[in-house]
Amino acid sequence: MLWPNSVALIGASSDTQGLRGRILEIMKGHPFAGAIYPVSRSQTEVQGLKAFPSVADLPEPADLAVLIIPAKFVAEELDRCGRAGIKTAVILSSGFAEEGGEGSRLQDEVRAIAARHGMTVSGPNAEGFVNTAAALCPTFSPVMEAGRPLLPPDGRAQAAVISQSGGLGFAFFDHGRPKDLSFRYIVTTGNEACLETFDFVDYMLDEGKTDVFLLLIEDVKNLDTFDRVAAKALRAGKPLIVSKLGQSQAGSRAVASHTGALAGSHADYRAMFERYGVIESRDLDEMIDIAAGFLAFGSRLPAGKRVGICTSSGGGGAWVADACAAAGLDVPELDAATRALIDAHLPSYGTSQNPVDVTAQAVHQMGYAEFARLVAGSSVVDGVIVVITGRYPRLLVGDRTPLATLARESRKPIFMWSYTKPAQACVELLSEAGYPLFTNMHGCARTMRAMADYRAARERFMRG
Amino acid sequence: MLWPNSVALIGASSDTQGLRGRILEIMKGHPFAGAIYPVSRSQTEVQGLKAFPSVADLPEPADLAVLIIPAKFVAEELDRCGRAGIKTAVILSSGFAEEGGEGSRLQDEVRAIAARHGMTVSGPNAEGFVNTAAALCPTFSPVMEAGRPLLPPDGRAQAAVISQSGGLGFAFFDHGRPKDLSFRYIVTTGNEACLETFDFVDYMLDEGKTDVFLLLIEDVKNLDTFDRVAAKALRAGKPLIVSKLGQSQAGSRAVASHTGALAGSHADYRAMFERYGVIESRDLDEMIDIAAGFLAFGSRLPAGKRVGICTSSGGGGAWVADACAAAGLDVPELDAATRALIDAHLPSYGTSQNPVDVTAQAVHQMGYAEFARLVAGSSVVDGVIVVITGRYPRLLVGDRTPLATLARESRKPIFMWSYTKPAQACVELLSEAGYPLFTNMHGCARTMRAMADYRAARERFMRG
Repeated sequence: MLWPNSVALIGASSDTQGLRGRILEIMKGHPFAGAIYPVSRSQTEVQGLKAFPSVADLPEPADLAVLIIPAKFVAEELDRCGRAGIKTAVILSSGFAEEGGEGSRLQDEVRAIAARHGMTVSGPNAEGFVNTAAALCPTFSPVMEAGRPLLPPDGRAQAAVISQSGGLGFAFFDHGRPKDLSFRYIVTTGNEACLETFDFVDYMLDEGKTDVFLLLIEDVKNLDTFDRVAAKALRAGKPLIVSKLGQSQAGSRAVASHTGALAGSHADYRAMFERYGVIESRDLDEMIDIAAGFLAFGSRLPAGKRVGICTSSGGGGAWVADACAAAGLDVPELDAATRALIDAHLPSYGTSQNPVDVTAQAVHQMGYAEFARLVAGSSVVDGVIVVITGRYPRLLVGDRTPLATLARESRKPIFMWSYTKPAQACVELLSEAGYPLFTNMHGCARTMRAMADYRAARERFMRG
Repeated sequence: MLWPNSVALIGASSDTQGLRGRILEIMKGHPFAGAIYPVSRSQTEVQGLKAFPSVADLPEPADLAVLIIPAKFVAEELDRCGRAGIKTAVILSSGFAEEGGEGSRLQDEVRAIAARHGMTVSGPNAEGFVNTAAALCPTFSPVMEAGRPLLPPDGRAQAAVISQSGGLGFAFFDHGRPKDLSFRYIVTTGNEACLETFDFVDYMLDEGKTDVFLLLIEDVKNLDTFDRVAAKALRAGKPLIVSKLGQSQAGSRAVASHTGALAGSHADYRAMFERYGVIESRDLDEMIDIAAGFLAFGSRLPAGKRVGICTSSGGGGAWVADACAAAGLDVPELDAATRALIDAHLPSYGTSQNPVDVTAQAVHQMGYAEFARLVAGSSVVDGVIVVITGRYPRLLVGDRTPLATLARESRKPIFMWSYTKPAQACVELLSEAGYPLFTNMHGCARTMRAMADYRAARERFMRG
């Protein structure tokens, strides 16, 4: 489904103001190398592509059918796809179990037809998916607008987003790309009549190219699948960062009418998550922060909760120390040997105690990398947070090579927090050097905590 | 001090790479109408301005002296200022109580000299201040770079920032300006040898042009001043949004070495804050969010904690409902009369229960304003959160007039949260229409909660 050579778009339209036209416009706006076959009863050409009256008339059975037609026609059309030899389908149409009654009946019918033809079906009530490596974007999400570069230029570690909610699924991409994160897949699963979130995780784990998973779920349909896949992910060391919608009464009302999900007891979910080291979060920004931490330093997880703070702003150091304490991290005084090494570079109003206030003056002379290296070298810390101002690339440009060397060689994770609003050039410079740049200090502290907890959970699990 | 007609800059330099040169470059980069007198022992002209060898040689006693010279010369120079008839001074130099020992002695000397001449002194170890209305920026903070517009174009409600930490103080401006917030003053107070945070609040309350205060404090020097000023602010309905640095052990170590502050017990601070409805926060982004809420709807504080959620994304509605519950807000089902009004506009897969999922389709047809108006009209809610996508101005442009009318006429606050990363044009369009646009849903929910709590605290206080 995620790697088709040909896609039939059923319900294609020339009207790019509407969802049915926008999906084709977006697909054409990225360099997908496979064939796109618009299927339209009324048009012979759609947006410059030859259109076909039915899936039965395609030059070949498409590898994937994307359906965006009214709910009442979906079952019949899916059956036609099955008979035409199409093996996978994504149903974007709404009007199924999220409405109850007749909608639920239609959804059961879809499930039965899929089973009869042995088809793999995602949706209904979904917003499509994106495979960035194939430049394939069968979705009407405006976030995937034509021409937007899907990936950073290099081949770094990649995240996948799987979300029942379409809008929120693509919101991860929208927030994460400016932070220079690399996404391999964004999959929105809607009502999950057939395929569910953890089926996709399973596939991606087997494929072995996704390093971090961001999952937004409204319910878990199949507990056996969850158990099996969550255990597989933990064994592989591929973290699942999950937010479970519908924890509150009103939220639970909302998910029922959104995707027909039964929210379930949150305590039950929490116990399930803890068993497999699943990282739970309640916030989009925080989830992206945690993903950024794992993508950069997933191979160097902190061995404990002790953090060294290195700062050019005295107030910033104090504030982030408070944030670390709130996140359950320790900020111990550094050992005497490390302090002596640092003190040799500090003016009289700096301090090496931890937070290490290196002062703006010393940073101007020596850059951040050397101080971060000294702090990371202390045996009393498991990771380092560097407080910087990312407003101007000037300072960082001169420090680029030592920073990249440190990121490559450090055996402890090093996180950067900018207390000013960072320039995009700084985000990208640091990202290329191997660092996530956090804009929220709590997100930064919670990331270090989540990574330490994940390592501990995995070690427990592997010991059995 | 904040409104001088003439400023003597003692330690002015031509080297704009250094702090002493940068401060003059920044001052000249904004259209301050008063006189700037560089004072330099070695130069007769600095950055194109005539320089004077001593404050005694100025054509008039300057209204304000800004000192950026080595700590050991500060006392002598301040005395010279006093003798020259200068009544106010800001000391940016470091090397005082934050270093202990000799530094503490120098700070005592500064205090004594100020008292002897009856001078008003801010600092030492500060980063200067900004008065946006006067376009006066005696600071070396790179955030205040030349040419940056200091204020939005119109005369809306304004916030002031007062911070012991220079870097963080200006970080509020740096984060808040892109959100189209209007700042009247940013004052960084450093070690607070003489003037302290609440002296500035006191002045600004008397002036009557500041509506919201963002305070970042490391300690409260004078409890009587705090009591008097906090009570005055609460009576005036001008909220104090405060973060107290040094709550953790490491944070408290850090503030001691940063500004020589003794952090004190956090429980004591919390009790003090609660007495006067002071809004406590631990996070820069959240503080700005809360300020944005008060600036827009401070005259329409929510009468309780019941929130109506209006969303174009079903998942977004569920998630923000969970965030509201986490913030201690209620999300009640709407009353039947309101639901009937809303249902008349919804497609079958929408719902009016609350969260009100109006669906992307209905929003495309009717815009956000009409739905927000209907939800706000319900007697069971005290405020409204509207979940939007602020990625493109397209939808909002057509809705601009109804949105502005609603913001003006609504007797309940209306908050906007964009689940996608908003375009700057959307932030400004909504800001001009009268709405803060939140990018974090928890910040949005906590803002509504803080405003409800503040109203309750103020009503209790006024009843005595």
